[in-house]
Amino acid sequence: MPKIGSLTQLHQIDREARLLERAIALLHWDMDINLPPKAVEERSDQLALLEGLSHEMLTGKINGRLLDDLGSTPENPGGDEGLSPAERDFLKVFRRNYDRLTKLPARFVKDAARAEGLSQPAWVKARKNNDFSIFLPHLKKMVEIARKKSSYWGYENTYDGLISIYEPDMTQEDISRLFTPLKDSLVKLIKQIQKAPQPNPDFLKLVYDVKKQETFNREVMNHIGFDEERGRLDVSVHPFTTSLGTDDVRITTRYVPDNMISSVFSTIHETGHALYELGFPREIQGTCLADGASMGIHESQSRLWENVIGRSREFWTPLYGRLQHLFQKQLDPVRIDDFIKAVNRVEPSCIRVDADEVSYSLHIILRFELEKQLFSGVLTPEDLPGAWRSMMKEYLGVDINTDTQGVLQDVHWSMGSFGYFPSYALGNLYGLQIWNRLKKDIPQVYTQIEAGSFREIQTWLRDTLYVWGKRLSPSDMLVKVTGKALSPAPFVQYIKDKYTDLYGLG
Amino acid sequence: MPKIGSLTQLHQIDREARLLERAIALLHWDMDINLPPKAVEERSDQLALLEGLSHEMLTGKINGRLLDDLGSTPENPGGDEGLSPAERDFLKVFRRNYDRLTKLPARFVKDAARAEGLSQPAWVKARKNNDFSIFLPHLKKMVEIARKKSSYWGYENTYDGLISIYEPDMTQEDISRLFTPLKDSLVKLIKQIQKAPQPNPDFLKLVYDVKKQETFNREVMNHIGFDEERGRLDVSVHPFTTSLGTDDVRITTRYVPDNMISSVFSTIHETGHALYELGFPREIQGTCLADGASMGIHESQSRLWENVIGRSREFWTPLYGRLQHLFQKQLDPVRIDDFIKAVNRVEPSCIRVDADEVSYSLHIILRFELEKQLFSGVLTPEDLPGAWRSMMKEYLGVDINTDTQGVLQDVHWSMGSFGYFPSYALGNLYGLQIWNRLKKDIPQVYTQIEAGSFREIQTWLRDTLYVWGKRLSPSDMLVKVTGKALSPAPFVQYIKDKYTDLYGLG
Repeated sequence: MPKIGSLTQLHQIDREARLLERAIALLHWDMDINLPPKAVEERSDQLALLEGLSHEMLTGKINGRLLDDLGSTPENPGGDEGLSPAERDFLKVFRRNYDRLTKLPARFVKDAARAEGLSQPAWVKARKNNDFSIFLPHLKKMVEIARKKSSYWGYENTYDGLISIYEPDMTQEDISRLFTPLKDSLVKLIKQIQKAPQPNPDFLKLVYDVKKQETFNREVMNHIGFDEERGRLDVSVHPFTTSLGTDDVRITTRYVPDNMISSVFSTIHETGHALYELGFPREIQGTCLADGASMGIHESQSRLWENVIGRSREFWTPLYGRLQHLFQKQLDPVRIDDFIKAVNRVEPSCIRVDADEVSYSLHIILRFELEKQLFSGVLTPEDLPGAWRSMMKEYLGVDINTDTQGVLQDVHWSMGSFGYFPSYALGNLYGLQIWNRLKKDIPQVYTQIEAGSFREIQTWLRDTLYVWGKRLSPSDMLVKVTGKALSPAPFVQYIKDKYTDLYGLG
Repeated sequence: MPKIGSLTQLHQIDREARLLERAIALLHWDMDINLPPKAVEERSDQLALLEGLSHEMLTGKINGRLLDDLGSTPENPGGDEGLSPAERDFLKVFRRNYDRLTKLPARFVKDAARAEGLSQPAWVKARKNNDFSIFLPHLKKMVEIARKKSSYWGYENTYDGLISIYEPDMTQEDISRLFTPLKDSLVKLIKQIQKAPQPNPDFLKLVYDVKKQETFNREVMNHIGFDEERGRLDVSVHPFTTSLGTDDVRITTRYVPDNMISSVFSTIHETGHALYELGFPREIQGTCLADGASMGIHESQSRLWENVIGRSREFWTPLYGRLQHLFQKQLDPVRIDDFIKAVNRVEPSCIRVDADEVSYSLHIILRFELEKQLFSGVLTPEDLPGAWRSMMKEYLGVDINTDTQGVLQDVHWSMGSFGYFPSYALGNLYGLQIWNRLKKDIPQVYTQIEAGSFREIQTWLRDTLYVWGKRLSPSDMLVKVTGKALSPAPFVQYIKDKYTDLYGLG
């Protein structure tokens, strides 16, 4: 019999670690939203202190003893067979985190944090000066740290170890198998689209009053079902979602006067993340199980709302009149069909975050290929700017003029976050496979969207997907939800159908 | 020779405790400004966790050993004579805090926190229902806790122990000696004023656009010299100031459409607190010495700016035109002299926070007398509503119709904060004594205020007062700054002169 006292104690540690983690998240949120400029350095000191306390809490010797008591080992992380399935899932997740953290020497963690602290400003400077050489030594250091980390965790293939941070049960081989056919289909489709007549998006580039944009974004968020008694919408330089508590999930957006539509789709995207976080069942809230199954699954939720639902004609049917009313001057002459065509316009460009729904995954596959080759030794950090340019030409037919628009465009590598990128495109694949299942269960889903009713969608997502939190691995969860392993086919089919229709392709 | 290693270690603990304290302050600030309504309970859990960690940090056995190493004892808190004066001051403050915290049994601290957690909502409910009996059992509990706390600290006179939390070197006897002549003078002055012709404040009760109020408040704050790169102005139900870091001091105000002037004076008041916090010298920032000498000294700074400077004609000379411009409809017919008379109007009423500069101290003296009698046993908690009513009649000639407007009006007792009130009136006394010294050193001070120049005032306050932080006791600091012990005379003289002039008294 497992020791119930040990379980209670471990739950208490987990609960406190979670409370602390969310206090840390508030310090970060406040740094992005409110912090006076001169207070940045001291805020970093506050964060370092709290992160140290959090690390102590999660790696204490007592934790190892309690896991032992409960029969949890690296081979059998779920512990004693007599425990309930939920408790075994809890032990698995707690143990994985504990093992990962304790395998990294304290010295390494400290050095890595310091190196990251230097790397980010160097990346900012390199971007500003459009000079990759400023960032290069830091990039090398980040690569070296990533290699070490993966090896401390016992991975033979460095990149597999890095991917596992974000997608616990995937390897680079798995991802290659998914991305290769995806790439081929998308490259082909883009070429077809480029030959077709293009919609006119000029009206989207007019100036839209920011106050009115704010009003509309809040309305859209509420329209979808975000409960403002359990969260907030604020403004930040880069949109994000953060959980500061079971009933405190905050999203941000940014308003650009001559790009009104970007704030709207950012808000919908972040609302998708927030609904997932807010939808975990009460019984796992406040524990390590109240988390997304993986980064890719999390991204599936934001992209589902942003693209599949948010860029559909049905979604805009009840909203477009209101938008026209707010921005009469700009939108009065624009019919809803032209609006839908414009917000779905395919136009390959060099910047990932500005990419359309068809090009987006190609930006990701490019980064995946580069990371794979970097860690297998095919490429060195010095090779990245050139490799970036040639792949952009190959995948998207786009010429890169400056490294700021190329290899320096994303923050991820400067933070050592290698292996993160694939999750964005995996999110598209997970999302469509889940959506197809939802459509089977709710055949009238588009009629509901058109009527502005999301209750049944929300309930389905909550009962079918959110309910698992982090209890299942993403692949197990996907099989449970959709009956099938992950495949690119549903996403490819969706994209083909949607854009064949929009562009009137043969 | 003191052990330098021990000193370094103690500084490190102090520094970390301070960082944590400020993270806790952020959680509180965010609770008042941003927290979604349903997240309140979990935020309390987060706070309880961090406060527990902070308590551990400040009371760890290691702290006691380090203090011993450095020769610091309760009798000789400053430790080894070989230490520098600054280090000895640091040890005194650290030791005092350590002794106070460790003398309270863990069980008592926990029970007290729980009782406070229940007391506050009961007070809110009692106010809402205008029913003192709802709050009474909690008030009794708070009194009992306060008695215990004072006795754990070794005080024979309970109230002295409670006062010492806020005014480290004062007793109820000291305060009585100051308040008795103050009361007599103010009661007499109010009676004179009430016989004189009254200014017409009706234009202050018009509706003022809140957006424009926000603009003006920000301008006033900047006018005085608040550096927005080192702090913020936000909106909350009750205005307050909080330090979230050396360069992150945040103030709040509240906007009432038909009471424009209350937001302005709140902002000036909180700016006064903020300037003090921002003005501690760099070498003590981030340590336990970077704090006000006492609550009363802190209040002296806010009241100095709010009343002595902020309600003067000179202060408004460069600002009033701007205010008229923003609120043309309301203020066009009002001359600056009438504006000054109106914002200084003396009108005794039942609510402390709405009180004018002359009545205010009487509201405080009333609370002081009640607390004194409560802890000496002359009054029981049951007696307080009646005693409140009769004293209000005696001091201010005001009739109290409901307990919500009487004994239930302040939050302090519901939090167990007995002994806090005197600081508000002591702030007036400290403030004027400091101001008189400043006027000697800067004879042209009112000319400068009239020119909108506060640089010399700021420099004087920083170099003369703020420079000490918490290094000196309030009475030692006052002697150092003004050459004299605290006396009510400067404040009484100031009030008499000002209101004799404003009301054209004999």
